[in-house]
Amino acid sequence: MEEKIKQLLAEKFPLWSTLSDDEKKQLSEGTAYRQYKKGSIIHHGQGECSGIMLVEEGQLRPFIVSPEGREITLFRVKAGELCLMTASCLMDAIATDIMVEAVKDTTVLQVPYPLLSSLLEHHMELELYLYKCATEKFSDMLWFLQQILFYSADQRVAGFLLQEGTDTLSYTHEEIAKLIGTAREVVSRILKYMEDEGLVKLSRGKITILDRKKLELM
Amino acid sequence: MEEKIKQLLAEKFPLWSTLSDDEKKQLSEGTAYRQYKKGSIIHHGQGECSGIMLVEEGQLRPFIVSPEGREITLFRVKAGELCLMTASCLMDAIATDIMVEAVKDTTVLQVPYPLLSSLLEHHMELELYLYKCATEKFSDMLWFLQQILFYSADQRVAGFLLQEGTDTLSYTHEEIAKLIGTAREVVSRILKYMEDEGLVKLSRGKITILDRKKLELM
Repeated sequence: MEEKIKQLLAEKFPLWSTLSDDEKKQLSEGTAYRQYKKGSIIHHGQGECSGIMLVEEGQLRPFIVSPEGREITLFRVKAGELCLMTASCLMDAIATDIMVEAVKDTTVLQVPYPLLSSLLEHHMELELYLYKCATEKFSDMLWFLQQILFYSADQRVAGFLLQEGTDTLSYTHEEIAKLIGTAREVVSRILKYMEDEGLVKLSRGKITILDRKKLELM
Repeated sequence: MEEKIKQLLAEKFPLWSTLSDDEKKQLSEGTAYRQYKKGSIIHHGQGECSGIMLVEEGQLRPFIVSPEGREITLFRVKAGELCLMTASCLMDAIATDIMVEAVKDTTVLQVPYPLLSSLLEHHMELELYLYKCATEKFSDMLWFLQQILFYSADQRVAGFLLQEGTDTLSYTHEEIAKLIGTAREVVSRILKYMEDEGLVKLSRGKITILDRKKLELM
């Protein structure tokens, strides 16, 4: 297993080649290989610190939950990407109640925080890489939360899709944007979000509703 | 003026001492010293890129505006701090419609993006510093937007203050938290936000309402 972890790290860990042989050894020895079943909650927020996770296969979904149980997916972490949301000790940022679910059967390399922390001391380029990842994801979140907060854009798109009385709609994103009074980019991003959530299926000039009930809950 | 700018940069620009003499010269020559009157909008979002701003005196307030004109202050940039929200070319993150107002008469050092960009090429530690600033501010925003989105915590605190029928309330944050069913930390942060917005004044065990009308609009 240790050989496998080392090989995976060499492939997937950012800036692996800049580490010393000694650091590579420490990292391989300290990293865990974990498998999660589809649907399992692998992080509960609340100050828990599971270190960073490097997705080998599958997909992770950081999300927040309202008191009424409404879930809002913040973004997706796909194969080859890093999940920082499980490392609340890395950034105070993550201290809020962000949960993380394995959307599919998922395997990850889990680097515990103390190990990561000692690497960061000597590798500023690695720290920069992590902060850039975090900033990118935060910016996606800000955009999306703003759409929900101010424009209820998600509900307006959902409402539009539902009112048509059919499960197969022939509209371009541009047309929907005009009809509900928003920008095309907004409609496209919301529809993409809905597709990722398994609510609709998008194809050329066509939108198919897959889960009417969940769409009504938006 | 150039001498003054150089002196200010030496005091306030992060990691100034790590720059070469040549870089210091370029930075001093390219940086503008600007004065903004209280209340002026100094950045309109929408892809504008005014570079980064280093606040010498006064205060900047990045905020977003709903279609109905409701403003949400994202955070504050105080004297000695950097405002990255005016540099949309630095991070895609900032492309959303974030506006920036000078809350008081404010003076800033404005470093244009092309100049900053050439510095960043050779100074990873500076880039890391900027990304850390961004991550910190984003995390504050996420917490706050989540409170508004899910818990209407701002409205609930405002409603509580207003219903008392007096402008001077004697409650601890702990007591309010219990009465409206949330955490003390949440109440404290919301009250601090209200104080920064000029809606209330906080003192030991006492809250004074300063602007009932604006509080009603929350």
